[in-house]
Amino acid sequence: MSAVSALWNAESIAVIGATERPGALGRKPMDFLLRHGYKGRVLPINPRGGEILGVPAYTSVTEAPGPIDLALIMVGADRVAGAVDDCVAAGVPLAIIASSGFAETGPEGAALQEETVARARAGGLRLIGPNCIGAVSFNNRVLATFSPLFGAESVPFEPGTLGFVSQSGALGFGAASLALQRGLRPGWVVSTGNDADVTALEVLRELAEEPECHGLLGYLEDVPDLETLRALSASGKPVALLKSGRTEAGGRAAASHTGALATDDRVLDAALRQLGIVRVDDIDELLDVAHAFEFPLRPKGPRVAVVTTSGGSGILAADAIEDAGLELSELSEESIAALTEIVPPFGAVQNPVDITATVLSDPSLFDRSLDVLIADDSVDLIIACFCVMAGPDVEKAVTALSKAARKGGKPILVARTGADFLAPDAPAMLRDAQLPDYPTPARALKAASALWQVSRPRPQGTPAATAEPLPAPAADATEPQLKALLAGAGVPVPKGRIARDADDAAALVRELGGEAVFKAVVPGLLHKSEAGGVRVGVGGQEAPAAFRDLAALGGEVLVEELAEDGVEVLVGVRTSPLGNVLTVGLGGIFTELLDDVSHRVAPLAEGDAERMIAELRGAALLHGARGTQALDTGALADLLHRLSDAVSTWPGDFELDLNPVRVLPNGVVVLDAAFTAEGGDQAA
Amino acid sequence: MSAVSALWNAESIAVIGATERPGALGRKPMDFLLRHGYKGRVLPINPRGGEILGVPAYTSVTEAPGPIDLALIMVGADRVAGAVDDCVAAGVPLAIIASSGFAETGPEGAALQEETVARARAGGLRLIGPNCIGAVSFNNRVLATFSPLFGAESVPFEPGTLGFVSQSGALGFGAASLALQRGLRPGWVVSTGNDADVTALEVLRELAEEPECHGLLGYLEDVPDLETLRALSASGKPVALLKSGRTEAGGRAAASHTGALATDDRVLDAALRQLGIVRVDDIDELLDVAHAFEFPLRPKGPRVAVVTTSGGSGILAADAIEDAGLELSELSEESIAALTEIVPPFGAVQNPVDITATVLSDPSLFDRSLDVLIADDSVDLIIACFCVMAGPDVEKAVTALSKAARKGGKPILVARTGADFLAPDAPAMLRDAQLPDYPTPARALKAASALWQVSRPRPQGTPAATAEPLPAPAADATEPQLKALLAGAGVPVPKGRIARDADDAAALVRELGGEAVFKAVVPGLLHKSEAGGVRVGVGGQEAPAAFRDLAALGGEVLVEELAEDGVEVLVGVRTSPLGNVLTVGLGGIFTELLDDVSHRVAPLAEGDAERMIAELRGAALLHGARGTQALDTGALADLLHRLSDAVSTWPGDFELDLNPVRVLPNGVVVLDAAFTAEGGDQAA
Repeated sequence: MSAVSALWNAESIAVIGATERPGALGRKPMDFLLRHGYKGRVLPINPRGGEILGVPAYTSVTEAPGPIDLALIMVGADRVAGAVDDCVAAGVPLAIIASSGFAETGPEGAALQEETVARARAGGLRLIGPNCIGAVSFNNRVLATFSPLFGAESVPFEPGTLGFVSQSGALGFGAASLALQRGLRPGWVVSTGNDADVTALEVLRELAEEPECHGLLGYLEDVPDLETLRALSASGKPVALLKSGRTEAGGRAAASHTGALATDDRVLDAALRQLGIVRVDDIDELLDVAHAFEFPLRPKGPRVAVVTTSGGSGILAADAIEDAGLELSELSEESIAALTEIVPPFGAVQNPVDITATVLSDPSLFDRSLDVLIADDSVDLIIACFCVMAGPDVEKAVTALSKAARKGGKPILVARTGADFLAPDAPAMLRDAQLPDYPTPARALKAASALWQVSRPRPQGTPAATAEPLPAPAADATEPQLKALLAGAGVPVPKGRIARDADDAAALVRELGGEAVFKAVVPGLLHKSEAGGVRVGVGGQEAPAAFRDLAALGGEVLVEELAEDGVEVLVGVRTSPLGNVLTVGLGGIFTELLDDVSHRVAPLAEGDAERMIAELRGAALLHGARGTQALDTGALADLLHRLSDAVSTWPGDFELDLNPVRVLPNGVVVLDAAFTAEGGDQAA
Repeated sequence: MSAVSALWNAESIAVIGATERPGALGRKPMDFLLRHGYKGRVLPINPRGGEILGVPAYTSVTEAPGPIDLALIMVGADRVAGAVDDCVAAGVPLAIIASSGFAETGPEGAALQEETVARARAGGLRLIGPNCIGAVSFNNRVLATFSPLFGAESVPFEPGTLGFVSQSGALGFGAASLALQRGLRPGWVVSTGNDADVTALEVLRELAEEPECHGLLGYLEDVPDLETLRALSASGKPVALLKSGRTEAGGRAAASHTGALATDDRVLDAALRQLGIVRVDDIDELLDVAHAFEFPLRPKGPRVAVVTTSGGSGILAADAIEDAGLELSELSEESIAALTEIVPPFGAVQNPVDITATVLSDPSLFDRSLDVLIADDSVDLIIACFCVMAGPDVEKAVTALSKAARKGGKPILVARTGADFLAPDAPAMLRDAQLPDYPTPARALKAASALWQVSRPRPQGTPAATAEPLPAPAADATEPQLKALLAGAGVPVPKGRIARDADDAAALVRELGGEAVFKAVVPGLLHKSEAGGVRVGVGGQEAPAAFRDLAALGGEVLVEELAEDGVEVLVGVRTSPLGNVLTVGLGGIFTELLDDVSHRVAPLAEGDAERMIAELRGAALLHGARGTQALDTGALADLLHRLSDAVSTWPGDFELDLNPVRVLPNGVVVLDAAFTAEGGDQAA
């Protein structure tokens, strides 16, 4: 048993700061544990000892009879350190620090928090919090929390299969209450506050180990840890995350610097997509997705069939399928023929299949049309829409749907646009039939999309193009040095070298075909072109003068072959809290005006680079749009793979920009390269 | 009293097809009218006469005592014509045809529908439907419907201020049931089915006349009628529409044809935006917006202040403000100073203002911080967020909010992320305080955005640049003819004319400055450039040969001056069901790959053309992005205004494409023009 799992497995809980005083926060966990039937030992800790709510209290956790699996610390911030020491002394493996007054208050609080974590770590104690509202297991009735949710007169308290971890306690328990209200079954709710030691992601990873946990949900303000995300993804449990602070991630300005474009939030998007983790934008959407996670069926593809009793719902569903990134199934000819026999003439046999309100007089319409859709290999998932229908009609519909669900092995999601007061038994019937239900087609389809995101095959395997890791360049590496280094990983760079003098430059031009590119190599010269440091198409006669002009800028002169015509892109790699981030984008207006770049977190899997390129809005430019020749996107993908491998062992924070890279009809060539290390100045 | 308003004002209702048979649809309106306390006369019509549910029945509507304000026709499609004739004979002004079997079934049904409408119109009878579920007034208890909603045991039945009209009956009453479930107060629910005579929009316009109606909501599958939309907008009542079939509108292919780009759905978007009508994408969103419409306060601007008890909700609210197209207020220095005195040190005084959970022990935190935000001129609207809070705490918060709402004249929307079972009285308290509430900050902010959309000042007045209406061109008008015509409206075109022969062409080149553009003018030649029909930069010596080459294509040769450098855009105007649609887009990849165009429905108001240009993603290209000169967007706006006026009286369906138009540092020039009329072939 891991220390963290005491949040739901604890057989003994010490409540440090317990009190009997009515209204006090320190009374609430005592109330909740006793009232909701916690089966383990409750150990109130209060300097005055005595009894609290009829339970013997101890003056210190060191005085209480062990073993103690979990301590809930609810004393003032100034007394937390002492409580932590006591927990260490008592051999407690995990403590929740509910107290506020730490990093959330400023630098002093942050120092106190750091010190507290250090004390705990030195003593082998793991910490949840501080500044949190605690944790609850609905299954084992561990209520190490003071959330007002559990003081409500009639809080539903059934075992559940959903694990929900939230950095924000108020939002987390608020969302949990909404989940309960709509009949979802959370099994675990954990708030982790400042994430000082154990993070929300770590709790999610621990929950993934629980066999009874069928789906994982998180509200996060910070996602620093790719390894834990990977472990979560590898657990096979479906995960959905609401990460706030999306729009504060800015950085569209410095268009030619991939680092500036690769805002953290977009990197997170890319990483989650790579890992098959669903990202949602609101609490409602998190709960909608959670509801779909509760049941086991998963789609084998993105093709959706809609069966509806209302034409209006069918149209809304068709709209929503496109919005959700899914596909409207093209039904087989056999299906269409079979449906033509079933559906009334004023219905529709094409997808969306409109069986019309005739279903009210002939409920078998649902059964028979669902049988057809279940049997059709072009259907991966079914959305069943019905509108305002009263009790018995809903029951008949649900019976038909549940029969189909059992038979088919295909997920069926229900869009029932009608109030519960019309059919009060419907929610329980739908749950028993393992049919997730939503009030509108659009919401059902967002949940369906999440099911497909967590079940679609993830990129696997090693890509065809690989490179050995390269040594890291010096922080002040020049353009020719970087190009020479990269060439060692099979990255194509132009032929050429530093010219020794004007004569050598002229000789080089002849060697390179009679015309060449001259570039000033001046450490610290940031904007070479603007400074007059680049000459394209220099002939043999102009070479000496060009050499002298560029040398006058204070550095060396690089002479390179002219590249063929093609389309220019930028390629970059930089470190981020989630690991190395690869970026590709089309040059010019595409990045400057349209921010048209795509990202992946390294290492890239088979096909990742190709998908990065395909995601660009302007990708058609590379494929020969506007009557031009198709360019070698395969070589561009190859470059991305090689780059990903080549930099994999580079230490510290860095940014490597290849900008531009020209994509040619055959191959690519890196025309410029720049490197920045450890927040230092960018090399020329 | 208009005929249509009988849907809610009828003092007598004939139910044609009424029956006592249990379970029959024809029994339901009788049941509902009697059970829910309709005060007027109910006149069941059944060929057998007698009594139905204790009410005397008549064998025909012509036999029933008049006047009859409204007839509900529920007989089979084959007997509808007879019922319509009877209504005409009996002088009934409005009938609802609930019966199916009309246009929704195919051409035969469509013919029957057309004939039915013709009969009714000839007799002065207006029709709702066919293929609908009828209409309800919650205020006057007019229940001319068979919707199962009103058969439910406990349907809430209070007077309301929201008017909801839906083409789909099932979806309409389904959505109405969800509205009732969440405590909204619909006053009118009308389904209009096939919209054969009276359309859903017309019903909305009639509802706008009702003083008690505070907000209008529509579910539409078709919006053919700009005049009614304008009238709705002019009524001053807030309107939100859910229009389905968004994604079926395609047409991104033929990039150089503005008609193809201006898909109907995007035109509808533009028209609604021009008219200050809110467009929503889902039923939930429609109801969220409706809830905000119920209360009178409106924002004077888009600047939002957030006050929250949970940091998490504050961050989510900040994200949602940007998503909703609103602005996070920059609070004044005075406000910040005042808040610093109020908010606990671990809270936040910058917007979002986090008053923290300390509000639980000191409810005045809410009062005092709201006072500051109400007084701050940089705040137009306030979002108040709180999470899971139990009964008494919610009451205190609501009391503070309602005091502020009364004081301030600024709308306050509540995001209460907590279940109703925690505070069962909260929904009623919030309603009494006229505070719309939502479960998440994002939903509150979408509703806030709708409030701003309906209350923001709409473009008014005549624009500076105007032109007299031009006569319509001939269907086969050539490029020089079109240019000559447009020049008459002040549209700038290049100098030049048709060359008579090779010598004349050479003379023209000299006259135009030594270099010119040669263009073949061949009726029916669609792709001039591809056919070799355009030569740019023809000098005097080359002129005769160029003339002969182009003349060989079978038509005349136009010789024009070379235009200055600039950026090419496309400008178009075409007819649509909503009126003439103006389109502007950047040329090249922007339209071909990115579909970067914007639309407005004519006539343009002051500033509309400028806004069209500003909406383009690539607009920065015109403003001197990438170090180039700023171009004359004022002249482009002027062109759009002139074009809007110039074509205003052109009859029939047409499309006029000015592509490209070159935007210059000073002015614009129309380089090519093409005209298509009545679906005919496009002229060269």
